[in-house]
Amino acid sequence: MPHIPLEEHLPGITGLLEYRQDSAAPIRVLTQILLRGDSTLTQGERELIATLVSHRNQCRFCTTAHTAAADLLLNEAETCEAVKQDFETAPVSAKMKALLAIAALVQQNGKNVTTEAVDRAKKEGATDMEIHDTVLIASLFCLYNKYVDGLASVTPTDPAFYTRLGERIVNHGYTRLQGGYDHLKK
Amino acid sequence: MPHIPLEEHLPGITGLLEYRQDSAAPIRVLTQILLRGDSTLTQGERELIATLVSHRNQCRFCTTAHTAAADLLLNEAETCEAVKQDFETAPVSAKMKALLAIAALVQQNGKNVTTEAVDRAKKEGATDMEIHDTVLIASLFCLYNKYVDGLASVTPTDPAFYTRLGERIVNHGYTRLQGGYDHLKK
Repeated sequence: MPHIPLEEHLPGITGLLEYRQDSAAPIRVLTQILLRGDSTLTQGERELIATLVSHRNQCRFCTTAHTAAADLLLNEAETCEAVKQDFETAPVSAKMKALLAIAALVQQNGKNVTTEAVDRAKKEGATDMEIHDTVLIASLFCLYNKYVDGLASVTPTDPAFYTRLGERIVNHGYTRLQGGYDHLKK
Repeated sequence: MPHIPLEEHLPGITGLLEYRQDSAAPIRVLTQILLRGDSTLTQGERELIATLVSHRNQCRFCTTAHTAAADLLLNEAETCEAVKQDFETAPVSAKMKALLAIAALVQQNGKNVTTEAVDRAKKEGATDMEIHDTVLIASLFCLYNKYVDGLASVTPTDPAFYTRLGERIVNHGYTRLQGGYDHLKK
């Protein structure tokens, strides 16, 4: 049960974003810019960063939701699963492995990002902006994971819920839709 | 040295917010809403939450900056120092101790926030919105700390820098000023 009264039909982050809509607005905008805005990283690659960080924070809601989004964007389910298990052996580019390594260090503590980790990413072709965005996306998902779990929002167990949420994220992005999350109801 | 090229005269978060201004805008708005917007928590109390989390994340830039802001808002320097050392014995209300305890748990992992910790805060008179805001402020400062340290932004050693930054935060809030951070130069 959530620590504060959230609408029952709005699990995970969805109920929190409805609970306080004025703070939700910039969170949505930031996420839309970082995950859906112009970038030399694909939307799928950015969802992999979000998923890895959520997985390392053991945030089941965010991990399952962004796995669904990544799977839809990549058009297969193997890559995201492999990234969660061990990104160093996952079927992603050498540059993505280096960026995922940076994201994993950010998840622990920003101080853990070493010059070696950044040099590896640069050597594999990562731009300064890609390194910046990787750090900021990883930091943002630490915010989400702590927000979602810190208030004990509900984590649905029905896989169909995450399929619908993943479709929403992929097709409509992170901005607020008319009617909030009504379309997530069955 | 920062991991990416940041303007030399802009240390800590300031250079990052100038580096990518489109993502900086919603971060600024979110911070302004949570730390300076209408709330039953004072601005000083909210800066104490920001400072405690930054201190626990060992982010020296954010800790020193928000200590300066808290000291200015509280008009003394003892309380913030005591909160960092041991908030349970610091000269703050029983409600604030309970909220700081929640913030400290969020800093570790959202999952660590127990029903007991939330019940304690409610028993001391904390509202649902105060609990929500405590969790979200703590989560936001984890984002800041990871962003600042993850890109190895510069941490000034001159105390006068933080005094100027604290005055800026207290007098102008978190929105972007005309001229960026030029006024922080000596």
